[in-house]
Amino acid sequence: MTHLIQELKQVLEEHQFSTNDTVLEHHSRDESYHKPAKPELVVFPETTEEVQVVVKAAESFGVPIIPFGLGTSLEGHVIPCGRGITIDFSQMNNVLEVREKDFLVKVQPGVTRSQLNKELKKYGLFFTVDPGADATLGGMAATNASGTTSVKYGVMKDQVHDLEVVTPDGSRIHTGSMARKSSSGIHLNSLYVGSEGTLGCITELTLRVYGIPEHIMVGRAAFPTVNDAVEAVVSILQAGVPIARVELVDDRSIQQVNRYNNTTYEEKPTLFLEFHGNEAGLLQDVDFVKAIVQEHDCQGIHFEEDNAARVKLWEARHQLAYAYIHSFPGRKLMVTDVCVPISELAGAVNHARRVIEDLGLQAGILGHVGDGNYHALLMLDPDLPSEAAKAEQLNEAIVEYALACGGTSTGEHGVGRGKMKYQEQEHGSALAVMEKIKQALDPKGIMNPGKLVPTRRTNV
Amino acid sequence: MTHLIQELKQVLEEHQFSTNDTVLEHHSRDESYHKPAKPELVVFPETTEEVQVVVKAAESFGVPIIPFGLGTSLEGHVIPCGRGITIDFSQMNNVLEVREKDFLVKVQPGVTRSQLNKELKKYGLFFTVDPGADATLGGMAATNASGTTSVKYGVMKDQVHDLEVVTPDGSRIHTGSMARKSSSGIHLNSLYVGSEGTLGCITELTLRVYGIPEHIMVGRAAFPTVNDAVEAVVSILQAGVPIARVELVDDRSIQQVNRYNNTTYEEKPTLFLEFHGNEAGLLQDVDFVKAIVQEHDCQGIHFEEDNAARVKLWEARHQLAYAYIHSFPGRKLMVTDVCVPISELAGAVNHARRVIEDLGLQAGILGHVGDGNYHALLMLDPDLPSEAAKAEQLNEAIVEYALACGGTSTGEHGVGRGKMKYQEQEHGSALAVMEKIKQALDPKGIMNPGKLVPTRRTNV
Repeated sequence: MTHLIQELKQVLEEHQFSTNDTVLEHHSRDESYHKPAKPELVVFPETTEEVQVVVKAAESFGVPIIPFGLGTSLEGHVIPCGRGITIDFSQMNNVLEVREKDFLVKVQPGVTRSQLNKELKKYGLFFTVDPGADATLGGMAATNASGTTSVKYGVMKDQVHDLEVVTPDGSRIHTGSMARKSSSGIHLNSLYVGSEGTLGCITELTLRVYGIPEHIMVGRAAFPTVNDAVEAVVSILQAGVPIARVELVDDRSIQQVNRYNNTTYEEKPTLFLEFHGNEAGLLQDVDFVKAIVQEHDCQGIHFEEDNAARVKLWEARHQLAYAYIHSFPGRKLMVTDVCVPISELAGAVNHARRVIEDLGLQAGILGHVGDGNYHALLMLDPDLPSEAAKAEQLNEAIVEYALACGGTSTGEHGVGRGKMKYQEQEHGSALAVMEKIKQALDPKGIMNPGKLVPTRRTNV
Repeated sequence: MTHLIQELKQVLEEHQFSTNDTVLEHHSRDESYHKPAKPELVVFPETTEEVQVVVKAAESFGVPIIPFGLGTSLEGHVIPCGRGITIDFSQMNNVLEVREKDFLVKVQPGVTRSQLNKELKKYGLFFTVDPGADATLGGMAATNASGTTSVKYGVMKDQVHDLEVVTPDGSRIHTGSMARKSSSGIHLNSLYVGSEGTLGCITELTLRVYGIPEHIMVGRAAFPTVNDAVEAVVSILQAGVPIARVELVDDRSIQQVNRYNNTTYEEKPTLFLEFHGNEAGLLQDVDFVKAIVQEHDCQGIHFEEDNAARVKLWEARHQLAYAYIHSFPGRKLMVTDVCVPISELAGAVNHARRVIEDLGLQAGILGHVGDGNYHALLMLDPDLPSEAAKAEQLNEAIVEYALACGGTSTGEHGVGRGKMKYQEQEHGSALAVMEKIKQALDPKGIMNPGKLVPTRRTNV
């Protein structure tokens, strides 16, 4: 490591690397229950060229690299497995270009979602992907993040037109173009989106953005049971209503919302709904939705009248994880994250609730139910191994159910360390293809080892 | 080859392979100007297991494989480069499952687009991707096809939830799941979509489908110049109107339409437009569009009143290439296929028209202009090398322009043989990554060699 630092000192300035214990500690953890581990060194590059220098040095010394955005991961992506250098992208945080006529924006990986939206607002544009946390766009691309709006606008993968990536040999490549579509070459955009830093470092992103909708309507619908709420969602989707967001928040989570945000929402299983479009079309859609939710015993649907109330509702939803964290000091967040076919959603949620009760756990259920993606949310006491074991049992039962009905072990949080053990069961013989790709593109296994796919380190 | 045929005879029945000259000839060409070449053998598997047997045999004898759908390619994808076995998927043509509640359908690769839509209609569903030709879905996935509706619904890549693929070693993998979204594993769906048979054979597809829209409005808008029409499209997109199709057909091509379809459309540069939604929303959108096109000197916008007229309009658009082929017997079709950022579209189309005039060629211009994807369409006399040379000059000029402004050499037709020479210029150092992936997944280079990416044949 000393030799490596010597080499980096020739290019990076003093303030661009650190072995300070507080800095290492900050880079040892994410927002989840996964056990922290410190890197040996943290570097703070400011340009792609500097990232290339760091990667080349790490490659020649055979030292692993862990890319780091803001550490909002929930599956341990940024926690070193063994030794390693963390590359912190927080100093590469410029919005480089807004191509408003092309609905494209070019950003550095350290730009956060809210920072981008603040800039885009000047142009009447917005970036759709909204995972709750104010994550960096580099991190969001690395995990193929999504969130509340993906039912209408798609996930991170759908927004990435081009990435600049520094590959493990220090080369700089572009994975796409500025064109809306392309049939040229092997598609690399989607290969690097969701690759969790295991194939290279993202150093620039060109993302699709949208015009702020002419009209937005936001509502809340309360139901007697979670099952009624989920079945109402399935009916809305099957009716073909182009809904922009539809979020399930169960009664337990609504209690957290009310406590943390001083709201007085009815403490029943609730759907938060949003519609985008022109005024006439929206009114017709909303009437249709009102009729559908009545058929599922909706106990009241309320549309917010003003913008402040709309903002408050979505803030409440976004801060839900933090509301739980705030209510249980000293405990650690564990969130399950499966996604199932829509037709299996009610069954999957009911199963999860039964397992939660059988295990005697206290967990909220929420999620982006328009995609079939739901979360069970638990606050763990890290000093109680029996509780952690039960939580793990719950996670396993939920994943098993999802895989058995054609779903996935992770809808949006990624594999990281937490979902590694389900990869073989989920992907079967396709895992061998993933391993071949990893081996071909990172033969020394230096890129974020221990995450996403098994690494065969052949040369270090 | 005799030994290989002996081996196949143990598994395939007599009618499942052919060296008959008519059959070989049928599999020697596509619908384009690319020079035909016969395979040595054509096989007609009926199951995935049979495809595995063929691939394993070909791999052990080191004989290349060329997957074949219906031969509607425009870039020579299905034409053997040297020796090879063509796998014709026409006998694997069953719609396996319609999961209407999940908006998913499972099909074999030989199912055609129109066959699928006929089946889906019973469920009130439709498959959105519409490349004009009634291609097979396997072929459409292999080239990442798109077409008239991709401005709203996306391209083939956006519809593929899962592929079953037989890899070059004869393994059978699944690239995705039934879930609407996933952050699990390295994303293989998009790697195999558009891989043009160079990484494996697609043997099953799970595709996203949509509900047939509640209301559809279809119109034609005529403009004094192509430039006015293109600029009107850019304004419509920038206004955020959710248009479902917007096709440019220039005056020359409208003449072909009228001749071939007995229509009497005004012979001016024209936009064919379609809107999907609820009735109230559509009326508001259409009013908005009428106002926008007026600002671009539109000489008349006409909405079709009845379903028959709507069907006729889109049939006319779809049969345009065949209208040209019909009008120029003995000549061969050449179609350029770049896609540029929307802001560059008017400039790109104007440049193409100037080059066409300078070269003294006669070419139509049309395309899916909502995506920035346009085509120049020429009918070549294969016996006139000077004409072919001029057409090649035009293609080059159009590609150069597109790449210079951040676009791609192929928006939807794929690379095949025709766009191989632009791959290095377009992808730069990313081409090395593509070559590594090809090498890792097809080390013997038996999968459709000579297409998409350079093949290093190491072991045959």
